[in-house]
Amino acid sequence: MPDSVEPRPTVLRTFRVRTSNHIGVLARVLAVLAEHGASVGDLRTIFMGPLSRIRDIELGFADPADIEPAARAIDATGEAHVLEIRDEVLDLHAGGKVEVRSRYPITSDADLRRVYTPGVGEVARRIAAEPELADHYTLRANTVAIVSDGTAILGLGNLGPLASLPILEGKAAILAELAGVSGVPLAVDPLAPAELAAAVAAVARGFGLVQLEDIAAPRCFEVEAELRRRGIPVFHDDQHGTAAVVLAAVIGAANAGEKQLANARVGCLGLGAAGSAIAGALMAYLGRPVLGADIDEGALKRFTAAGGIPATLAEVMGTCDLVVATTGKPGLITPEMVRPGQVILALSNPVPEIERDAALAAGAAVATDGRATNNMLAFPGLCRGGLDCGIRQFEAPIFRAAAEAIVASVPAGQLLPAPLDRSVHRRVARAVALAAEREGLATREVPPDYMLDTRG
Amino acid sequence: MPDSVEPRPTVLRTFRVRTSNHIGVLARVLAVLAEHGASVGDLRTIFMGPLSRIRDIELGFADPADIEPAARAIDATGEAHVLEIRDEVLDLHAGGKVEVRSRYPITSDADLRRVYTPGVGEVARRIAAEPELADHYTLRANTVAIVSDGTAILGLGNLGPLASLPILEGKAAILAELAGVSGVPLAVDPLAPAELAAAVAAVARGFGLVQLEDIAAPRCFEVEAELRRRGIPVFHDDQHGTAAVVLAAVIGAANAGEKQLANARVGCLGLGAAGSAIAGALMAYLGRPVLGADIDEGALKRFTAAGGIPATLAEVMGTCDLVVATTGKPGLITPEMVRPGQVILALSNPVPEIERDAALAAGAAVATDGRATNNMLAFPGLCRGGLDCGIRQFEAPIFRAAAEAIVASVPAGQLLPAPLDRSVHRRVARAVALAAEREGLATREVPPDYMLDTRG
Repeated sequence: MPDSVEPRPTVLRTFRVRTSNHIGVLARVLAVLAEHGASVGDLRTIFMGPLSRIRDIELGFADPADIEPAARAIDATGEAHVLEIRDEVLDLHAGGKVEVRSRYPITSDADLRRVYTPGVGEVARRIAAEPELADHYTLRANTVAIVSDGTAILGLGNLGPLASLPILEGKAAILAELAGVSGVPLAVDPLAPAELAAAVAAVARGFGLVQLEDIAAPRCFEVEAELRRRGIPVFHDDQHGTAAVVLAAVIGAANAGEKQLANARVGCLGLGAAGSAIAGALMAYLGRPVLGADIDEGALKRFTAAGGIPATLAEVMGTCDLVVATTGKPGLITPEMVRPGQVILALSNPVPEIERDAALAAGAAVATDGRATNNMLAFPGLCRGGLDCGIRQFEAPIFRAAAEAIVASVPAGQLLPAPLDRSVHRRVARAVALAAEREGLATREVPPDYMLDTRG
Repeated sequence: MPDSVEPRPTVLRTFRVRTSNHIGVLARVLAVLAEHGASVGDLRTIFMGPLSRIRDIELGFADPADIEPAARAIDATGEAHVLEIRDEVLDLHAGGKVEVRSRYPITSDADLRRVYTPGVGEVARRIAAEPELADHYTLRANTVAIVSDGTAILGLGNLGPLASLPILEGKAAILAELAGVSGVPLAVDPLAPAELAAAVAAVARGFGLVQLEDIAAPRCFEVEAELRRRGIPVFHDDQHGTAAVVLAAVIGAANAGEKQLANARVGCLGLGAAGSAIAGALMAYLGRPVLGADIDEGALKRFTAAGGIPATLAEVMGTCDLVVATTGKPGLITPEMVRPGQVILALSNPVPEIERDAALAAGAAVATDGRATNNMLAFPGLCRGGLDCGIRQFEAPIFRAAAEAIVASVPAGQLLPAPLDRSVHRRVARAVALAAEREGLATREVPPDYMLDTRG
């Protein structure tokens, strides 16, 4: 199937394959795998013998039902044999992906006296007398609560709070590795929004900020609004983190498509949690309304109240130069709808509204999907910068600053930077802290060279 | 002041002292420090020159006002000079004592695919289909929420939730270092008990169990009861952890005092959170009522309802062979009240109801204070064992098993083992898991050799 785009994998497996040492065997094994819909990741050679080789091949499958037939087809070649099929992802998740560690060894009575009593008594008394000292003498200023009720997990829907834990842990692992932030996964019961916010607020005091995750619309709006009302610094990553990254991609795509973004007609398909935040970020950035379409009346009403122009799918596709789709409807955009020169960001996961190649073939100037606009580009820096300046609240200028920092990190020829490029997260953190200071949202100054790369 | 017991330090400081190289100078410096009420911890030599030496001396002061005069008195000797006074405890607490770490490095796209999307999607789906799998595929089965509202911090009183954070972190650091458990500090607003319990319950699903800390009586009883009612495994360390350690100490003290505990008349002074739990543990262990005294009518009423015999201070001191005091009243027990051969555990911190030496001088057979009955002996093993057997709830037999495991770890000539002796925590964990299995409180079996030391 060389002409079709690889399907998005939903499960990963590692095949350990023994091949005979003849020329072309590995290529034929990969061809068989491709026929069975497997996308190939890393290959590692385990054993090189005089007659055969053993390799681990990392594979992604869109449909788990393809795994066994793929293995049997390899065996059927007569040149190769699948020795084992391993699930390295599940192995890795076993026992959790993050842990709480002591920053100091406790091996002597002196250690105990310092870490615990009597030493800790003076720390507690000082904080009681001057509560701001908690940001200095506790984990608070480096710690984020990552909160989900599991009502909108990835593209999978309402799977409940326990199922959100591995996602929250993944975010915590990324925060720790890429930004040095302690993220505490909090899986919260799917209570009514006001109750859920009250429960989170009750434990929020010990965290520098709260990051909401995978909460379904419209409850996510109510939960966030209530936390804001209570003065707790908060952002919903699926809205604001995603919106910052999409805004960066839109700026990048407009540049790539040689459209003048300032004059472009912009439309959003889908006005759920992500879509409405993206529309809001675009309107704030452009300083004018954008078009928006959604089948849900409530979503359209909220969009109109936020200053957007309600429209139909046909109107958006028929009139807009730049379209951002977050509808969760695979294939919603048919090639016939695409206008020549259009810039299309079809962001629904795991399957977009239109495949990138199909959009380009239909005449789009630039097209991308959700895999390219990874919200991993925003949240580590949003947390790092927000914590370091003691942010009072996340407002529109903060996300705009994050988007511009992402755009400033884009290498030539790419739409967005790679999420593992640590300099992106440093730039976002710096932009967030400086924007917060500028907007009067910071409670602490960061040093002038905060997160400046040594290269300047 | 060679004849008086060293006062309990409430603040720690490190003096960096330069001494001339004459014989006896260090001894004179320590004598000066003793005169100023400083207890001496570690000494480290920083510099040994031909004419002088520089040493760091760790000091504990009961009263911070003694620090400066002590330094001036050293300078006044003419043989020694205090170069600096450092607060190493505060330095250590800066930035927090625990952190959340990724258990795996994230350096490649393959790492990301496994830790986060798409790999995590399959984990989430599996947990949604079979919620018990969360104990296998997430941090849940190794993670404890350590919860306080700061209403009863150490011996210091109601300092509020933020001031509880350094204590919660200290416990988390101890859990990590001594038991390999992830402890998440949750400082919760001091809401009404039912609301507080509801907030904790709302986020409890992601934790294997909940450890309550430093919550004032009687609210601690209501919070715990409500969490139990909601099926969340929970113990209040200041009650049950302390009670397990005190029960161990009582068994040890009775042995040391050659009293037959089975025939001893036992009394409790103070029936607050700790005292009432201790009385309950003693009654469960002995299988008969004990005497109890408290000035609070509500506390006495709860004690009577739990099967205790209400009494006065005079009755307890005048008739009991073994007395456990947790009143928070320094010096409540005068030497005149002590009966010859009595066993006295005066546990209030930082100053006990009667000093150990004074009780022994007045004729007590065995006496100890709160520093010896550190609840650090119980909670790491309670958490480790409780998590490993997937404990449904902590009930009296669990704490009794923990106490017996502590007693089994006491070295000859000591009342209790040292809290840094890791074998104690392994024994407690094993005893907790086996007791939970025996009592039908375990949801998972532990292997037969669980936490058995290699020595057998």
